[in-house]
Amino acid sequence: MIEMLKKNYLDVPEEEVTMAGSSGVRIRWLITEKDGATRYSMRRFEIKSGGQIGLHNHPEEHEIYVFSGKARIFNETDFETVAGPGDVLFVPAYEKHGYENVGEETFTFLCVVPIMKKH
Amino acid sequence: MIEMLKKNYLDVPEEEVTMAGSSGVRIRWLITEKDGATRYSMRRFEIKSGGQIGLHNHPEEHEIYVFSGKARIFNETDFETVAGPGDVLFVPAYEKHGYENVGEETFTFLCVVPIMKKH
Repeated sequence: MIEMLKKNYLDVPEEEVTMAGSSGVRIRWLITEKDGATRYSMRRFEIKSGGQIGLHNHPEEHEIYVFSGKARIFNETDFETVAGPGDVLFVPAYEKHGYENVGEETFTFLCVVPIMKKH
Repeated sequence: MIEMLKKNYLDVPEEEVTMAGSSGVRIRWLITEKDGATRYSMRRFEIKSGGQIGLHNHPEEHEIYVFSGKARIFNETDFETVAGPGDVLFVPAYEKHGYENVGEETFTFLCVVPIMKKH
């Protein structure tokens, strides 16, 4: 049976993001199917000063909430912004997106991503 | 066409939550279908010191990330915890859940909820 649960983000192991074009990026999968989630997962990212996630895309849309730091977030064409604490971003499905920490602090954010069902 | 977007949470109007059993609760719908989201919405809640959201349930599961403050979060039977900054909660579909701010600070958290499709 799926039950209500609480944990702290620090209880969740941190993993290095090894995707091509990424450096200095760590992820914690805070809530996933293993916790009973059926529709989307909640992840917490940290990008070190100077670190980045290169342009990439996928079928999953993103909902992002920035905790701290300052990063350039961009797509392949006309979108480019510097995001900081309290900023919220939406990235549509298949849109190419990248992140570059342009501050001195670690850039930390929450990113919610759909659980794609296998058909 | 749906496009990548950024806003700050302060740009989103705050609404009073008027649900029965609730007091001192405000919500901001940060990302919704209006922004192009197709699967879930991201909301930011503030519960004033002494405020609460009474026990209630619904088909939508919740994924919660606590920013600040201290609240008792409970279900109808055996789950009761005090949640604070950096805590993460999962509330399964249909499970009754309630929140009570038991600290002096405002209790603020992010709560992601599915967009239920009309059939």
